[in-house]
Amino acid sequence: VKGKKGYMVRAELSFDEVDIDEFVGLILPGGKGPEHIRNIPKVTEIVRRMHEAGKPIAAICHGPQILISANLLGGKRVTCYHGIRDDVKAAGAEYLDMEVVVDDKLVTSRVPDDLPYMMKEFIRLLK
Amino acid sequence: VKGKKGYMVRAELSFDEVDIDEFVGLILPGGKGPEHIRNIPKVTEIVRRMHEAGKPIAAICHGPQILISANLLGGKRVTCYHGIRDDVKAAGAEYLDMEVVVDDKLVTSRVPDDLPYMMKEFIRLLK
Repeated sequence: VKGKKGYMVRAELSFDEVDIDEFVGLILPGGKGPEHIRNIPKVTEIVRRMHEAGKPIAAICHGPQILISANLLGGKRVTCYHGIRDDVKAAGAEYLDMEVVVDDKLVTSRVPDDLPYMMKEFIRLLK
Repeated sequence: VKGKKGYMVRAELSFDEVDIDEFVGLILPGGKGPEHIRNIPKVTEIVRRMHEAGKPIAAICHGPQILISANLLGGKRVTCYHGIRDDVKAAGAEYLDMEVVVDDKLVTSRVPDDLPYMMKEFIRLLK
């Protein structure tokens, strides 16, 4: 997988190979990826099952688009990239313009500069 | 304004200079533009006032993101780029996977290949 600035990451599992029991948390990065994978049933299934298992989920920038598709935003307090602010609101979430928003096990941030804030809260929930 | 493939278009008016009485219809193109302008109050005001004036509005690809921000999709039948399908649904619309969907004065399409279908319906509504 090639990032926006050229950084390469090797995908070690296909979505179908994911066993949620092997993971303690989930991070949904942003960029163009969320739009490309949010309609894949296995993707939203992984997200929903991680959520139901009480495991922390972090989403940043466009990452919350996947949370919309997984139907997880109703009544939740979240933040996201400002360009999809009205989408998370339409999905029933309360949007807050903050570096990081934590609602139960859901950790959301707006832009890459917010990453330190997001990771601090995400790691706190993993403990 | 420079398009995705390098084509240049001269913007002749700023949003603040738009007088909706001078226009018979509105087309909302897709791409990255909608995310950049959907949070500008004047943009959603133009769209809402055109709609209230009974003038046809066409939106393609990511264009419907602006319709979400303008709160115009509740109960409407629409289509859009598949990557924002769940956003138009969350906004209360019924999503249809068709070249073009017409609901009252709202004309929507999915991708550039649908443009001939969209324009035919849009022009029909202008007559």
